[in-house]
Order: sequence, then structure tokens, then C-alpha cells
Amino acid sequence: MICAVILAGGKGTRFWPLSRENCPKQMLNIVGEDTLLRQTIKRLNGFISLDNVWIITTDILAQDIRFHLKSLGKDAERIRFIIEPSGRNTAPAVTLAAMILNKLSSDSVMVVMPSDHIISDTKQFQNKLQVAVEAAQEGYLVTFGIVPTRPEAVYGYIRSGRPFKDSSDEIFHAEGFFEKPDAKTAETFLNQGGYYWNSGIFVWKTAKILKEIERYLPSLFKELKKIDELNDLRNETFKELYSSLESISIDHGVMEKSRDVLLIPADFGWCDLGNWTALSDVLEKDEKGNIIQGNAIDIGSENCTVIACDRVLATIGLKDMVVIDTADATLVSSNKMVHEVRKVVETLKRNNREEHLIHRTVERPWGNYTVLEKGNRYKIKRIVLHPKARLSLQLHQHRSEHWVVVFGTARVTRGEEVFDVHANESTFIPIAVKHRLENPGPIPLQIIEIQNGDYVEEDDIERLDDDYQRMKKG
Amino acid sequence: MICAVILAGGKGTRFWPLSRENCPKQMLNIVGEDTLLRQTIKRLNGFISLDNVWIITTDILAQDIRFHLKSLGKDAERIRFIIEPSGRNTAPAVTLAAMILNKLSSDSVMVVMPSDHIISDTKQFQNKLQVAVEAAQEGYLVTFGIVPTRPEAVYGYIRSGRPFKDSSDEIFHAEGFFEKPDAKTAETFLNQGGYYWNSGIFVWKTAKILKEIERYLPSLFKELKKIDELNDLRNETFKELYSSLESISIDHGVMEKSRDVLLIPADFGWCDLGNWTALSDVLEKDEKGNIIQGNAIDIGSENCTVIACDRVLATIGLKDMVVIDTADATLVSSNKMVHEVRKVVETLKRNNREEHLIHRTVERPWGNYTVLEKGNRYKIKRIVLHPKARLSLQLHQHRSEHWVVVFGTARVTRGEEVFDVHANESTFIPIAVKHRLENPGPIPLQIIEIQNGDYVEEDDIERLDDDYQRMKKG
Repeated sequence: MICAVILAGGKGTRFWPLSRENCPKQMLNIVGEDTLLRQTIKRLNGFISLDNVWIITTDILAQDIRFHLKSLGKDAERIRFIIEPSGRNTAPAVTLAAMILNKLSSDSVMVVMPSDHIISDTKQFQNKLQVAVEAAQEGYLVTFGIVPTRPEAVYGYIRSGRPFKDSSDEIFHAEGFFEKPDAKTAETFLNQGGYYWNSGIFVWKTAKILKEIERYLPSLFKELKKIDELNDLRNETFKELYSSLESISIDHGVMEKSRDVLLIPADFGWCDLGNWTALSDVLEKDEKGNIIQGNAIDIGSENCTVIACDRVLATIGLKDMVVIDTADATLVSSNKMVHEVRKVVETLKRNNREEHLIHRTVERPWGNYTVLEKGNRYKIKRIVLHPKARLSLQLHQHRSEHWVVVFGTARVTRGEEVFDVHANESTFIPIAVKHRLENPGPIPLQIIEIQNGDYVEEDDIERLDDDYQRMKKG
Repeated sequence: MICAVILAGGKGTRFWPLSRENCPKQMLNIVGEDTLLRQTIKRLNGFISLDNVWIITTDILAQDIRFHLKSLGKDAERIRFIIEPSGRNTAPAVTLAAMILNKLSSDSVMVVMPSDHIISDTKQFQNKLQVAVEAAQEGYLVTFGIVPTRPEAVYGYIRSGRPFKDSSDEIFHAEGFFEKPDAKTAETFLNQGGYYWNSGIFVWKTAKILKEIERYLPSLFKELKKIDELNDLRNETFKELYSSLESISIDHGVMEKSRDVLLIPADFGWCDLGNWTALSDVLEKDEKGNIIQGNAIDIGSENCTVIACDRVLATIGLKDMVVIDTADATLVSSNKMVHEVRKVVETLKRNNREEHLIHRTVERPWGNYTVLEKGNRYKIKRIVLHPKARLSLQLHQHRSEHWVVVFGTARVTRGEEVFDVHANESTFIPIAVKHRLENPGPIPLQIIEIQNGDYVEEDDIERLDDDYQRMKKG
């Protein structure tokens, strides 16, 4: 049995303001035809069945990711989830997944992959994966080393040793792991040869990785063994145990130490979008080296990444910069210092803002909503409902709602009544009256909701019935 | 009689996106405690009566400026307006004003001033003005020359000649006008001494300036004489005549040529805000040379002007830049190329956008409105009405309106009915039904208006009665 474990707990701070806590990098469609996470899943098509795809992610992201995968179709419901109470880096995540898979089949091979990398050549990827699986079945920890094309200082490196089985240049023993080097060392690595970028993709038997973890991370293994013996991975004991685990990467904890690591050189168009400047490696640039998207007007900029939204974004005479505009936040940074965006996110968090948490438009399984304005005692939302979709049957303790239908027809449940509201008609939902909004028609329904009350936050909601089995979130 | 003629026709392109066509630089409060125009008027307080203050501006700006001056109080209604059908530079404007004033009193002295300059030392300004008026009464064209503090290449220069009446260093004959010099020449001017920045403020008798215009701009004078003979400055003949006048500055057309020009050196804290970078001359900077305002988060920028609004604006590692954010448009520019903002405005115009015309929030004499969203067949506005204010009695041919009161109480006229709508209540105005919105209370009224219809533009309005005598605009 071959399983894929997709690491999808990344917070995506580095792609703020396009990424938010509830919409991290893996859920963004910035390169290619789909989001990075959905591309990661599609990349396995024909090689690993969706029944054997596992996504490991954090509690706060799991529901959004489930919604996010709906567009892959009914089949995507076969994907299983492992929920971390909180992110503890890759070693705990990998161990937890390995223990779970190992119980299902002690003979299984697992492919561990980040959810936010780009791989443009799927065919080569799958071919290499086949080679890796075969080597893994012989009891090795196998990883892909990306053939470097430039002296990149933002990636880790792996040095190749002697060929595996002395047979070819397709697979080598790994001789050393190197953390992000300085520019000069990266230059030396490139000139010297035999150094590869650490792709973060690993293939091994669950039994083998568990053995290596027990050996090199004995205390982590011991703690996780306790978790493994729990019956329910949703209870408080699990949360406590997991949250107190050492935060360490599998690279650092195991790969650097194990003597059974193999390396498969690859050049399948891999890119780890580390930050905004990485886009210039993967997106097409104009003759001045700029990537310009959206409603932007540029005059004379060079070597810039400018991503606008609907608002007008004018850039003049910029050099080596990143400008990212969203409905509620804008980032303007020099290329050189763009990694400092982390500090911006920290500041927002400290100031109890919302711009690091959610976008102005929040995607939901039934459609989306956009907060058009929040004022004293009121909030205005545009709500779009997919054909045939409906919100939960709910009530609010602190607000009433005015609904004006601007497009389509709404079927409204209010108390015991059910009635239709057409475009250019309105209705009123008093405080504490149970209600439901439904789109009975074949076209999207669009309404403007004006909430009025002492408290107009998302958490004032009691769900009495929900098509999407949500207990908390809107 | 001493009159002030304030030139307020400037389009304010250079301060986009804070300035818009209906809200140019002179109407912005970017430096000091009030807008530049209102500061210009207040500066005359005690020296020139409001009865003798004239504002010359263009047709499209006049109404907005009238509204804008309301905050100066009832007295501001005494200010008179001269309306140009279109801007034709300063020589036609000055000639038109001089002809009108000369008819009222052939002995009058006029002080011509731009409406968008900063003068921080009002006392010195008025003292110098007194000196200028006295010299003007002797038949001279008097101007202020600002003592230069740096080799500035964005201003015109005037060279002083021999002292006037050989009496003091307070007033000189002007010996030459120089257009914006290159950096090297500006340096020479500063080192050599006797060169002053051209302030664009002029003092002269109307009779004298008309004589000089007749002499140096004879054809312009002849054309304007025709206008002077018209009885009505609002008819089509005026429009046609005025719009075909030569577009030339009074500096170039008269001041450079006249032999009767006097120069009064001044250092009353003058600044012509030529573009965004000029702000760094007049606003306080932090230790890294930055001016940072609004909801901005900066990390490590130097020598930048960052003006944010409510939206989050994050700037990282910028150098020598201007970043200006507004609700619907953002400008990011190098200091060096910020004059190119003109091209951005041209592009917006060419693309039939609105972001060069109006702000998202439009100030009106009764309060303001903000377009929160415009979609297919609908538009959402937040409308704020001052206490006791009311909109015109109006109707729309193509849209109905839903009004939800979120704060205060609305008195609604709908057809023949008049009724009050309280916070958290709503009402509906059908198509083609006359209606009026009024705030009967002592606190601001805030409503959300959702327009629905085939056509939801501002010009679908028929006014049946209006407190502000408007025939066209909302």
C-alpha cells in the first residue's frame, strides 16, 4: 500500500496579504491553474488513489481545507484528515501520520509532501516517485534532491555520495544535509556539483521511519507512543500531549542523522515558494523584469512583482520591489526585505486586527460573503449563495438582519414561515428568531444583509441544522 | 478698495490619489489645521474683508468649493465667485477678474493669490502685503520673492535689481524672471544671491494690470474686452469666447516683460506643494526621514512619505518613496518619478474610470455619501446626514431604493406620505415616486441605501425642491 501524507498545516504568513490564517499559501492560486494544495493532490492522480491520500493539518484549518477540496468533486471526500491540535513542525506530524498508517498496514510506504510546492513536470515526478517507492520498499529513507540552477541561498542542500547499488546516476546515498547556506557557500555548492536542493519530499516505509524516529528522537517517539494508544484523537489528552511535543523538523531530527538515506536527483520544475520574490522564478515577466497582474497602472518600474485587485494600484519608477494589494490590506516592500512581512503579521495579531486572519471575502461551502462595512452597531455583508445551496438554520441573540435581494430569488425561513423574496424585495429577521436563507433557483443568489445590534460579530450564531455539519463557524 | 482674487481652478492632478477632479489639492487638508483653500482665505482675516474676496475657479469646481467654504460660517457666503468655463491658465483668469473689479472701482488694488500654497507666518505675510499695496497704489506690479533656503529646481526665480526709491532692502525693482532652472543653475542662483523664488502672489491696481495686459498681450486683451461687454457671464457666447483664449501665464505674458515690476523679499514660511515629495519640506519627519500617517505599519523604511487610510498599509524596507493609500486607489512611487502621476490620471481618464474624478466618500452640503459597492443592477451607499439637514425632494426614473436606518432617525417623504423611520427599521422607495430624506434629530443620521434598477448612476435624478439650489448634482 502506498499512501500520500500531505503536510498542509502551513500558516502562509510569508504570502500576506494574499494569504491569511484561514487561507494560507497552499490554498492560493498564484501559480498554475489551481491552488497549490489542489495541484499537489492532482499531481498524484494515477499513482496514488484518493483513498490513500491523507492530509495532516491543524484544527483551525481543517474545515476550510475540506471546503476547499470540494471543487475536486465527490471523490475528494475520500481524502482523510489527520488533525494536529497545533502545528509542531514536521517531525511530530510525520510521526503521528506514520503511527496511524502503520496500524492500518505495517507494510505501507508513505510519501510525505508539502502542500505548497510547485512541480511543473508531473510525468517526471511520478516516474521518480516510482523509483523512490521501490527503494523505500528495500528499507531506505528516500528523498528528492533538486538539481540546482542557481546559487540559491534560501533552500537547504543535500550532498550526494556514492551511487546506490553502483548501478546508475539515478539514485545515490545521501552524504550530508546543509541548512540554508550564505551566498558564497551556495556559489561553491553550485560550482562544486553534487549538491542538491532539499525538496522536503520523502518516501519511506512507515515501519522504517518509525524505527529511525525511535532511534534518533527517542523522547518524541515515546510521547507519541502515548498518543498512539489513545482511542480518540479529538480529546483533551491528545491536545495536551501533542501541544507539548518538541517542535523539530524531520530533516533535522532524522534525515541528517540516519545512515539509510537515499537521494534521487530530480529536475521536475520544483519550486518552494518561500516568499513573494520567488514568484519571479515561476511567473512570466515582461521585458523590464516585472510581473504585473490585476488593475494596475505601471509607469517605468523594473524587476517588480505587482499584484493588484479591483482597486486601482498605480506604481511609478519602482525597482526591485513587491507590491501586493487586496481589498483590505496592501503590502509594499523591497525585494530584499520581503521576509520581514512576518513582523507585519505579528503586529496585526498584537493589535487585535483581523487582516491576518481572514480576507474581506470569505469562501464558504455554500458560496461566499464579503463584509462591505462594519460600523457602530451595524455590519453590511454581501452574501452570494450557489444554486440550490442554503445556509444553516440559525438564530442570533444580539442582532436583527435586513435582507435585500439584489439578484436571484431567496427562499427565507423565518420562525415557522417559509416564503420567497425576489430581486428588489426585502425582508427582516428579528433578534432571536430562527431563520434560514436558501437559493431555490438555478442561478446564484445575491443578497445584501444589514445587521443591526449591540454585537455584530460572527460568533453570535446558534446553529439548529446545517448541511455542512458545522458547529461553530459561519 | 483692496480685493483678493484667489485662483482656485487647479486640478490637483499631482496629488492624486488624495486629490480628485472634484476635490483638488486646494480642498485637501494635508498640512496645517485646515484645507489649503480655507487657510488661504483665513490668512486675509483682518486685512481684506470677505466682501472683497473673489474666488476664480472653473465651472465644474464652483459648486463643490461653495459647499467646501460653508464650514467657514455664514460670513463665507459673502465671498464672490468668478466662473471660468474652463481653465485657461493665469493670464486670462487675471484679466477677467481685473476687468470685473475695475468696473466696480477703477481705483481698486487687487491681490492675486494661488489657493494651494502654504504660508506659515501670517503676521509677516500681512505686513508685507501692506508694503505691497502701498507700492501698487503708486502704479507698480508688485510680487513677493521668497528667500531661497536651498537650490530648489522646481520653482521659478526672480532676480532683484536696485532698491526701490533707494531707501531700504524691503523692496526692489525686479530685474528678471527665470523659469525652473536645472540643478546646477539653481545652485549658482543660491550662491550668487539676489535670486528669489517666484511666489505667484501679485499685487497691483486693476487699472495698471489691464494697461500692461493691453500692451504685452494685446490680442488676449481684445478678446477679453468682448467678454467684458457681455451682460451675462453664464451664456454660451462667454463659454465660446473664453475657451478659445490663449492659454498663457501672467508671469510669462506680462511680468517678464513689464518694466514696472517690484519685488518684495519675504520669508513667511511659503511653500508651493508642487507634488508629494514637497510634503517632506513642511511636515515633521521621524529620525529616519519618514512621514508616516494613518493605519500604516512600517518596517525599516527611510526617507519615505507614507499616507495610509483605514485600510492596512504595510511598508517594508522602502527608500526615497511615496506611498499614498485611499479607499479606492493606491499610489506607490519613487520620489524621483512622482511627477509622472499625471500619466496615471490620464490613463484613468482614457479608461473611463472614476478614480480620478471623485473619492469613494463624496462630501455634500447636507453630509456625505460613500459608495460601498456597485454591482450588476445595484449600488449600495452609506449616507450620513447632518442634524436638521435634508436631501432634495427627488425621484428616479430607473431605480427603486431600500433604506435601512442604522443610526439616528430618518424622516421620509414618500409620495404624499411623511413618516419617521428609526434605527433598525427600513423603508422602500419605488421607481418614479417622489421622495425626500431628512434628519429631524440632533444627532447625525446614518442610513444604508440599496439601489436596484436597470440604471444606477448619479445622473438619474429629478430634483423637485432643493435646499442647496442644485439643478444637477447629487
